Amino acid sequence: MERPADPGASLARLPGKDPHNNPGDVSVDFPVSVVLPAGGTGERTGLQTPKQFCGLMGRPLISYTAQAFERVSWIQCVVVVVATESLALMRDIAQRYRHSKVRVVPGGSTRHRSIRRGVQALREPEEQVGAGTPKVVIIHDAVRPFVDEDMLSKIAMAAKEHGAAGAIRPLVSTVIATTSEGYLDHSLERAKYRASEMPQGFTYEVIHQAYQKCTDYDLDYGTECLHLALQYCGTNAKLIEGPPTLWKVTYKRDLAAAESIIKESLSQSSCVLTGDCPSALSLAASLQKAFTTQHMDLDIIPNLQGDHANYLLKEWNFIQISVNGSLSEVKALLASLQAAERALLNPVVVVWVHLSGADLPSIGETATEPAAISDLASPRLENWKTFCCTVSTSGSVSMMSMRSN
Amino acid sequence: MERPADPGASLARLPGKDPHNNPGDVSVDFPVSVVLPAGGTGERTGLQTPKQFCGLMGRPLISYTAQAFERVSWIQCVVVVVATESLALMRDIAQRYRHSKVRVVPGGSTRHRSIRRGVQALREPEEQVGAGTPKVVIIHDAVRPFVDEDMLSKIAMAAKEHGAAGAIRPLVSTVIATTSEGYLDHSLERAKYRASEMPQGFTYEVIHQAYQKCTDYDLDYGTECLHLALQYCGTNAKLIEGPPTLWKVTYKRDLAAAESIIKESLSQSSCVLTGDCPSALSLAASLQKAFTTQHMDLDIIPNLQGDHANYLLKEWNFIQISVNGSLSEVKALLASLQAAERALLNPVVVVWVHLSGADLPSIGETATEPAAISDLASPRLENWKTFCCTVSTSGSVSMMSMRSN
Repeated sequence: MERPADPGASLARLPGKDPHNNPGDVSVDFPVSVVLPAGGTGERTGLQTPKQFCGLMGRPLISYTAQAFERVSWIQCVVVVVATESLALMRDIAQRYRHSKVRVVPGGSTRHRSIRRGVQALREPEEQVGAGTPKVVIIHDAVRPFVDEDMLSKIAMAAKEHGAAGAIRPLVSTVIATTSEGYLDHSLERAKYRASEMPQGFTYEVIHQAYQKCTDYDLDYGTECLHLALQYCGTNAKLIEGPPTLWKVTYKRDLAAAESIIKESLSQSSCVLTGDCPSALSLAASLQKAFTTQHMDLDIIPNLQGDHANYLLKEWNFIQISVNGSLSEVKALLASLQAAERALLNPVVVVWVHLSGADLPSIGETATEPAAISDLASPRLENWKTFCCTVSTSGSVSMMSMRSN
Repeated sequence: MERPADPGASLARLPGKDPHNNPGDVSVDFPVSVVLPAGGTGERTGLQTPKQFCGLMGRPLISYTAQAFERVSWIQCVVVVVATESLALMRDIAQRYRHSKVRVVPGGSTRHRSIRRGVQALREPEEQVGAGTPKVVIIHDAVRPFVDEDMLSKIAMAAKEHGAAGAIRPLVSTVIATTSEGYLDHSLERAKYRASEMPQGFTYEVIHQAYQKCTDYDLDYGTECLHLALQYCGTNAKLIEGPPTLWKVTYKRDLAAAESIIKESLSQSSCVLTGDCPSALSLAASLQKAFTTQHMDLDIIPNLQGDHANYLLKEWNFIQISVNGSLSEVKALLASLQAAERALLNPVVVVWVHLSGADLPSIGETATEPAAISDLASPRLENWKTFCCTVSTSGSVSMMSMRSN
């Protein structure tokens, strides 16, 4: 027990360190870059497209993973290593989704050869992102899109302190040893073992040295970077328990699972714009109550001016309440969202609620309004959904459709 | 290598043994019953409802698993072991979805105690399904709904021959041993180990004896039935490689994955009813071509009379082509499906294609027909979808919407 406790483990518990709920922002003050091997052919998914390039709600899986690193301020460069035939595709993805930290390099014939190539690329002079050799290299899988900043900072900090660090998860199934004839030999004591997952982190020296010293056999048949660090640098990796969302998209069914996670996270919070009208504020308060019972967050703001403009970058769901029946407010909202390019990465849902003075809206009104609002949104913006709902001031509020697809 | 090769492994390769593509039907000629422990609280899904009772397209997960055994002719009885507070719910599910082989019994405080209770129940005199003590007991998880007859017959045959048998899968992640301080100790050589999955099978004597002899510690903390059989009966289980669909619904995301598998299997084949009209036959032939390019099966039959009636039990998607514009044929189809109670277990999709003689249908026709057909289907049958599509005899055929939800 001479070694100090995991420095990362306490990070998540530090309160109020960061206004944007990014526990790693303050603590990781050394250069960190990422190598993302993405050369897999995805034969286990049963799909023709390698799974890292499969679309989730229209956007390739690997773009979600890249974005998980893009949004972390202390990460400098993300080297994506792909098969030669995918170079153009990956460069196109990086450009289309504005992944400014991503650099695409061709891989080797095996996973280890690809990672080694990525590690080398981090100190080549022609590097576009100009970060210089990092202190710590994080290695991750292209098909684990839900890694969060908290986990990344824990891995980076532990890698800096111990030379190597890796994410682990409890074993889901009992692991058994088999005889050569296919019979049960013995089962392992579950408590002593863990599944080794990604991300893993290494100081640049350790991972560089491990790949310098290792054999062709390692490069061709090995799977674990942690094992190379142990064998060739004598570095026992610090192991850090990760959340279940670190799981690897492996089978076709996992694409549906990943999409369900994205949809759920997109629909967990909304922002309602009320203007200054008291009846709009009272409707917003009722909505907030209803959302809370559904374990969703609802922020109430008058408009997107001044400090409120940061909701443009934070939210995917906007509810514009208007009382005068004109489309000008929702037009302005759509213009702001378009200027901020919010629909580039995920669908944006705009709900326009028209507070009508009458008890019940006439059929004419409900029929024309959705048409008008869909005219506004649809021609330019494929990745948008708008719904219109007319609520009577005397009627009760029922939950509106908010699904993003 | 003295032991004979796995007898189950060759079953799947036996051609033409069974007209309904059930390779196990012929070979398993001894009594087999099933114990399905379903007492889990599902805390890992993050849902309030235990995951075995969560709805997939409106039907509880455990009903899909029960149905996987219901449809296997040589399985006699399925004892579902649930927590006392879920007895009424489970009995209601068994009744609502006509699981005639299911018997519900209250479980114990741990998984092993529940399985032991289920094994005991198999030879209690008050047994409703009247099967008598089985030769082989298959133990499965309520949350692995996609087990197929091929795997079940392999497990049953191997259990009868070797006393015990269990499904295995390759390890997805590297398994590592950790030091007590949380560092990497060593990683296991993946090729020597497997993940132990379900189903498992035992002769009644072996599983009964194992539960008679085992200790309270085993009953409280053990997880593996295979381990008990080895320790208390000296039985080395035969291990059989299973397909990836054996995976266990563990997290909330797995519910979305399971639903995607069900939807995909439901939409993989259809049946088109043409009557005797040549132009309907020629449309059906075009459809068949189009379906083949999408890797879907399409059977063409004139109607559901005589031998063709078995399509009522086989298919979930029906395309009724009619040329006279009357609803009588599709009305008869809906009546047949309703009589066969096809919508009880899964959504049934009926597409009515009206072959029009004119080049393009008038707007009036396309607007009234969907309304008429939806009037037919919707009031009585929640779990049905009907679509109407009018195709011009001179126009080309485009793929129709066939998604079941």
